[in-house]
Amino acid sequence: MALVVQKYGGTSVGSIERIRNVARRVSKTFDDGNDVIVIVSAMAGETNKLVALANEMCEFPSEREYDVLVSTGEQVTIALLSMCLQSMGYKAKSYCGWQIPMRTDSAFSKARIESIEDKNIREDLKSGNIVVVAGFQGIDSEGNIATLGRGGSDTSAVAIAAGLKADVCEIYTDVDGIYTTDPRIVSEASKLEKISYDEMLEMASLGSKVLQIRSVEFAKKFNVVVHVRSSFNDNPGTLVMKEDADMETVLVSGITYNKDEAKISVFRVPDRPGIASKIFSPLSHANITVDMIIQNISQEGYTDLTFTVPKTDFKKAFKIVEETSKEIDAKNIKGDESIAKVSIVGVGMRSHSGIASKMFQTLSQEGINIQMISTSEIKVSCIIDAKYTELAVRVLHEAFGLEKGEVKVE
Amino acid sequence: MALVVQKYGGTSVGSIERIRNVARRVSKTFDDGNDVIVIVSAMAGETNKLVALANEMCEFPSEREYDVLVSTGEQVTIALLSMCLQSMGYKAKSYCGWQIPMRTDSAFSKARIESIEDKNIREDLKSGNIVVVAGFQGIDSEGNIATLGRGGSDTSAVAIAAGLKADVCEIYTDVDGIYTTDPRIVSEASKLEKISYDEMLEMASLGSKVLQIRSVEFAKKFNVVVHVRSSFNDNPGTLVMKEDADMETVLVSGITYNKDEAKISVFRVPDRPGIASKIFSPLSHANITVDMIIQNISQEGYTDLTFTVPKTDFKKAFKIVEETSKEIDAKNIKGDESIAKVSIVGVGMRSHSGIASKMFQTLSQEGINIQMISTSEIKVSCIIDAKYTELAVRVLHEAFGLEKGEVKVE
Repeated sequence: MALVVQKYGGTSVGSIERIRNVARRVSKTFDDGNDVIVIVSAMAGETNKLVALANEMCEFPSEREYDVLVSTGEQVTIALLSMCLQSMGYKAKSYCGWQIPMRTDSAFSKARIESIEDKNIREDLKSGNIVVVAGFQGIDSEGNIATLGRGGSDTSAVAIAAGLKADVCEIYTDVDGIYTTDPRIVSEASKLEKISYDEMLEMASLGSKVLQIRSVEFAKKFNVVVHVRSSFNDNPGTLVMKEDADMETVLVSGITYNKDEAKISVFRVPDRPGIASKIFSPLSHANITVDMIIQNISQEGYTDLTFTVPKTDFKKAFKIVEETSKEIDAKNIKGDESIAKVSIVGVGMRSHSGIASKMFQTLSQEGINIQMISTSEIKVSCIIDAKYTELAVRVLHEAFGLEKGEVKVE
Repeated sequence: MALVVQKYGGTSVGSIERIRNVARRVSKTFDDGNDVIVIVSAMAGETNKLVALANEMCEFPSEREYDVLVSTGEQVTIALLSMCLQSMGYKAKSYCGWQIPMRTDSAFSKARIESIEDKNIREDLKSGNIVVVAGFQGIDSEGNIATLGRGGSDTSAVAIAAGLKADVCEIYTDVDGIYTTDPRIVSEASKLEKISYDEMLEMASLGSKVLQIRSVEFAKKFNVVVHVRSSFNDNPGTLVMKEDADMETVLVSGITYNKDEAKISVFRVPDRPGIASKIFSPLSHANITVDMIIQNISQEGYTDLTFTVPKTDFKKAFKIVEETSKEIDAKNIKGDESIAKVSIVGVGMRSHSGIASKMFQTLSQEGINIQMISTSEIKVSCIIDAKYTELAVRVLHEAFGLEKGEVKVE
């Protein structure tokens, strides 16, 4: 008998009929002889409705009260799913975050999980219950409701799987698993059988929206095997797990892209110690995250600096940098909002050389100019003109042989 | 500085605009130098929506999960009202039942309050917060959410007023207070300045739907002064309070009516010991509440029995009694669904004689036949043909001088 944690997102529980569907899937797992803990999100659309109410009420809703409000969405789902399971003849019991309790810090609306008490849930499992848990929510040390931020139900599921030492954590979603790239761009994109935590982290933060980043960090930290799969069919999905030997034989696991950044360049900056800090401190104070940074080699005491920021912060960032550039006597600054970041990801890179240059070559053959480059152990990212995004993804996907059926790793 | 508890029902918080209106009223009370605790219901219609979801999910939803579901309604309101108060510059903090905690028994969907911890709320009041509490909900000894049943927010308010020794408990509703009778029937009905707990209990259970009965019992037990008033104007309402000397000078405080009962008569029952129990035990087992019972004097070893049951249980009750009557050799049984109960209520009755006979006389002058009579210390009820209900209420209202301006009791 295994302990299985299953998480169903908002689309999977988006209507009474879909909740019934989830109940059937859950009960099947239970009938197969497993203990089952189900984590659910709010019914699709519900969280948006609650957020709209808050915004209608006032411009800057208090974060504590915001969490009190939005956490009702998941509470509705756990009650309905438990009712459904009971009406099918199963024992079931719902848990709000505070009933577990799932302890978090007090960073309302983006709280971090600190610990999970397993006593209550264990007792209920022991007495034959299917345990149904509200995702996305916990309780801080003061007894306040705290939510984990959008997509936090993934993290709830992984944390519970870790806390209760589950055998597997299944994340049900509306896609079949993790693909080598966005199938809307490359129809030959193939589903990965498995992917390492680190690759998944690069994929997620680079723009694949299947799993919340924090949940992958959690899974990595506690070595939880996460099975990402579809709630609408029985196909096996993708296992997100510890790196194994198979994975290294693959050069590149996936191609991702991201059009959410913009670029700012500062030209002819007098190259003195502390100049970078002068430019980036005001941005950090304004809570603007800087992603890629490139500084050219200094020439005649001057250098050029280019970096990217989230597109949503672009105007604000540009204004701040404009002022800084006057203070530090830079020649001028330039902004560009029509850029894209295209990346190749794979643990195989560590043991294979020439992968980055193959990427550059592939792009150049198509006449795509590379504006910035950044690399990590398992990833290479290039900033290019946004209009070439789809083309770049397609040629890289082909160049690294990621078409359907090629990435079988067994 | 006084401690004021205010309760706003579903209509009063039925939209964002109305919640803003409530916030203005609450803040005014706070600005006047009072500590304020606000108890709110779910926004009008929300509870019905949640109940509909449960019923769509399954025929007999688990009561535990039903409470998890419906308690989200109040949780939404406390968050929104707190946000609103904060946006107006006030300190405010919301409380779910479990955060107080308001301890109840485990009778889900009709739980009884057992105790209220005042520590958390007191601390928040002390540090200048307006405290916003979700009505209708508490937590049992196992940590389950338990609701108090429909209208339970009144009871929450009175219990909190009792637990925190509030100076007054204001129940805001969509009427101006307690009237001498239903103003839809008698346009001259006048608002009572004050009414005793016992009178209010008789009024409420006899059909005036302003305050939940249990909240009045609670108020009586802990001597909480309840001020029933409108959330749509500033008129003073009605004080529900301990009986005082003034009240006794009034013969009758109100006339109530109830069309929700039906009558069953069993004729020529052999009058043996235990015969009443034979008839009523099966009804009680079927959870049917019997209200009035009349047994005629036995003649030649036979008696007739008549009693009333809720109209909703009439068919079921009739069938049960039909079977019993065969067993006990009664001659036959008869049912009547078109009856009404008209009652006069007043603590003054205790010290004044002739009030019942004045009621009978008044009805008979209009040719209204009295089918059954039942009396208590402060009430006389008559069962009459339903078609005379309005007429009976009107003539009694006039006979006891309850027209506008007559019931001033100071």
